Amino acid sequence: MSFRPETLSIIGLGAFGQLAARHLRPHLALTVCDPQVRANDLPQVDLAQAALADIVVLAVPLSRMAGVLRAIAPHLRPGAVVIDVASVKVAPARLMLDLLPPHVQVIASHPLFGPASAAEGLAGHRIAWCPLRGGAHRRIAAFLRAQGLEVIPTTPDQHDRDMAVVQGLTHLIARSLSRLGPLPQRMATRSFQKLAEAAAMVQDDSPELLTTILRDNPHAEGVRSRFLAEAAGIAAGV
Amino acid sequence: MSFRPETLSIIGLGAFGQLAARHLRPHLALTVCDPQVRANDLPQVDLAQAALADIVVLAVPLSRMAGVLRAIAPHLRPGAVVIDVASVKVAPARLMLDLLPPHVQVIASHPLFGPASAAEGLAGHRIAWCPLRGGAHRRIAAFLRAQGLEVIPTTPDQHDRDMAVVQGLTHLIARSLSRLGPLPQRMATRSFQKLAEAAAMVQDDSPELLTTILRDNPHAEGVRSRFLAEAAGIAAGV
Repeated sequence: MSFRPETLSIIGLGAFGQLAARHLRPHLALTVCDPQVRANDLPQVDLAQAALADIVVLAVPLSRMAGVLRAIAPHLRPGAVVIDVASVKVAPARLMLDLLPPHVQVIASHPLFGPASAAEGLAGHRIAWCPLRGGAHRRIAAFLRAQGLEVIPTTPDQHDRDMAVVQGLTHLIARSLSRLGPLPQRMATRSFQKLAEAAAMVQDDSPELLTTILRDNPHAEGVRSRFLAEAAGIAAGV
Repeated sequence: MSFRPETLSIIGLGAFGQLAARHLRPHLALTVCDPQVRANDLPQVDLAQAALADIVVLAVPLSRMAGVLRAIAPHLRPGAVVIDVASVKVAPARLMLDLLPPHVQVIASHPLFGPASAAEGLAGHRIAWCPLRGGAHRRIAAFLRAQGLEVIPTTPDQHDRDMAVVQGLTHLIARSLSRLGPLPQRMATRSFQKLAEAAAMVQDDSPELLTTILRDNPHAEGVRSRFLAEAAGIAAGV
């Protein structure tokens, strides 16, 4: 029995929800739901209505996810697909499996790009992909690949292990650099330019995202401690 | 009275000395001097002979600079130009002004590139430029600009302040990352890719260079301490 979605709702119109809306609206009948942000040219619905779509994309901060899941759970249709896009995966996966009824299909995902890095399109960007319940993930993954995305199957725990390094250290280093004040530009080497570019790419990320990456990833603290211990050891040894 | 150099010697054939030889040999009569490294196709001379050139480029580790300066000082001709290329500038500037006779012109420089970053040519690369004694620096800077380099006038102290951030932090971060083991690649974000590229660019630098950058720069320890304190504060605050 093939999954042929016609409607999709996006819950949460932060930076990523807006990016998703822009890319998905040519393909499906789209509704959006956000208590604060207005999308002038898309049908705005409440949570109960958003839950009626074939695919429900949760683009809310992790701190709001349990509340949203409880609100939509009674309204979701059998066979509907719920997909989250948070920057950690262990916690959202557990919440979705615990709080959504068994007749709902579940995918935990993490698009490894944002409005800044995908300004010139989706081609070549990646999305971490954790199918948790149901078979619709195959068809949706094929759709995402057709948009030029590289879909990377993984588990929530492996994702969080990798991201503790990838995002945890990038954000830690970027924030630390930005607190040093203006960086030297005239004298920059190529390698430092890359470092400064990496820092600039993440410095506009929201405080909620930073908290998710640095606190809500169960492996982040361990990786951070090892990195800082290595740096302190190098500093002490010279 | 115009400075028209015809001969140039390079003392020290490490990674940068070899790079300099490759780019300078079409322009001047070149000799090289190194106790270990052989340059098969360039005249190899001893320190006393190297000191007879119109321009003497010191491409030796900082730890060997005082010894080399004492060895060449009695042989340098009036009006000759001595240029160092070390990655810090306060210490070499002081050594050159203290140990070279007053009839010798002196420039402290720091090419902000190496064999890896200049693999495709010099165009667009930068060199920090501190004229310390004599007027020959103008003609030499004009020559370097004609090779496509951006010549950045600065003082030894300002250079070391900027480089404590630019090189000090890049190397500290790169070495710390490399000690964490293999980095995640499949899940890398664009910003993390830039961070990993920055680390890869400096990880083959010699231990002597690392020591110079992290220990011999008078501002390095202060910058490093501030960076690590900011990072520890962010880590503790999440």
